[in-house]
Amino acid sequence: MARIAVMLCGSGRGDGSEIQESVSVLVHLARHNATIRCFAPDQDQADVIDHATGKPTAERRNCMHEAARISRGNIAPLTALQLADHDALVIPGGFGAAKNLCTFAADGPAMTVHPEVTRVVLGFAQARKPMALCCIAPMIAARLLGKAAGGPGVRLTLGPAGSPAAQAAESFGAVHVPAAATEAVVDTQARVVTSPAYMHDHATPFEVYTGIGRMIDGLWQMLGRPAA
Amino acid sequence: MARIAVMLCGSGRGDGSEIQESVSVLVHLARHNATIRCFAPDQDQADVIDHATGKPTAERRNCMHEAARISRGNIAPLTALQLADHDALVIPGGFGAAKNLCTFAADGPAMTVHPEVTRVVLGFAQARKPMALCCIAPMIAARLLGKAAGGPGVRLTLGPAGSPAAQAAESFGAVHVPAAATEAVVDTQARVVTSPAYMHDHATPFEVYTGIGRMIDGLWQMLGRPAA
Repeated sequence: MARIAVMLCGSGRGDGSEIQESVSVLVHLARHNATIRCFAPDQDQADVIDHATGKPTAERRNCMHEAARISRGNIAPLTALQLADHDALVIPGGFGAAKNLCTFAADGPAMTVHPEVTRVVLGFAQARKPMALCCIAPMIAARLLGKAAGGPGVRLTLGPAGSPAAQAAESFGAVHVPAAATEAVVDTQARVVTSPAYMHDHATPFEVYTGIGRMIDGLWQMLGRPAA
Repeated sequence: MARIAVMLCGSGRGDGSEIQESVSVLVHLARHNATIRCFAPDQDQADVIDHATGKPTAERRNCMHEAARISRGNIAPLTALQLADHDALVIPGGFGAAKNLCTFAADGPAMTVHPEVTRVVLGFAQARKPMALCCIAPMIAARLLGKAAGGPGVRLTLGPAGSPAAQAAESFGAVHVPAAATEAVVDTQARVVTSPAYMHDHATPFEVYTGIGRMIDGLWQMLGRPAA
């Protein structure tokens, strides 16, 4: 069974990992009989958003303790994620990925990536272990791997062409490939698979589930295992 | 398009709606091109559980505002749920369903059902509009509809045979049908479809997704619409 690390950062589109994307990832990994371990930074979220009103609250919530809601208690601090224990990495999206795992939400093209996220993503890339990212999370791959290959940058999707996110990714050297919510983009050289998910804000849960299914299937092809 | 009301009550297996079950419901409803509206009681959860440790915290969280995390802001107070606006009702599980929608978690066979939940469930039943419930949520149907038919009680599943939940449902007059996580039980007379979901604690996310898919397909058959 493939051993997959899933990187979360809270529970909710506005301040954490997007819940529908994260569950779609878990369902499709389970469809492939993966051994799943979830990780998140053991630190406060950048903010807390009331998801009924869309407004920030004065609360403090911890990325790891909230993420455990999605994974039913299957969680460990991101510092405990060891490259040798896993065959591949998956990072779902949500604004939390752009607030807690990197600073794209606040800083745009001047964004930085969380040091532990950088350690993990560069570790997988250097070990040639594949990774899958959806929604805004591919921005992390764009920033860290955009020009890393020396040749053409990593090919990935952030959904529609010409968005601020797509332009920022291109500024990092990534090649942005527009895609629908039901699609996935596979870069066999960089060993990175991406799907737009809720970068298409009006996508349905089934479209997002379908696109993430293709993303995980693409990851499995890279792992050299038969599709379930 | 069928108009489906989904009743939530927080976001997380320990104190709210089970997230993986709720998302599976939304994905399968979207697969059938349903118009989905989510509702939850606009009141504090019975408790707040830290899902990384499993222990209660001193926080207060609101069932509706937390549920909005799952549904991406698609939420309204349960008091606003009008029978005439919907063709069917779905209630996912999670301990929250046994804490916030009824009191089974605290009171066992002496449980009571939240007055607004009672209004809604009895309204759908009396109008012969079908409903689907999974995990522990079928306990609500057992309590409210167990002996309502006068004849044999509602047929439903709470997973394994002989559990305290199954015994309590039987004490209400329901007929408990043991089922696997991937299965659904259809009562065409009471127009109630159920699936065990995480009543099988060691089920995988894909098994739960599969069983909920069969549950929603069963609901669609009752609605008299072609499967997607």
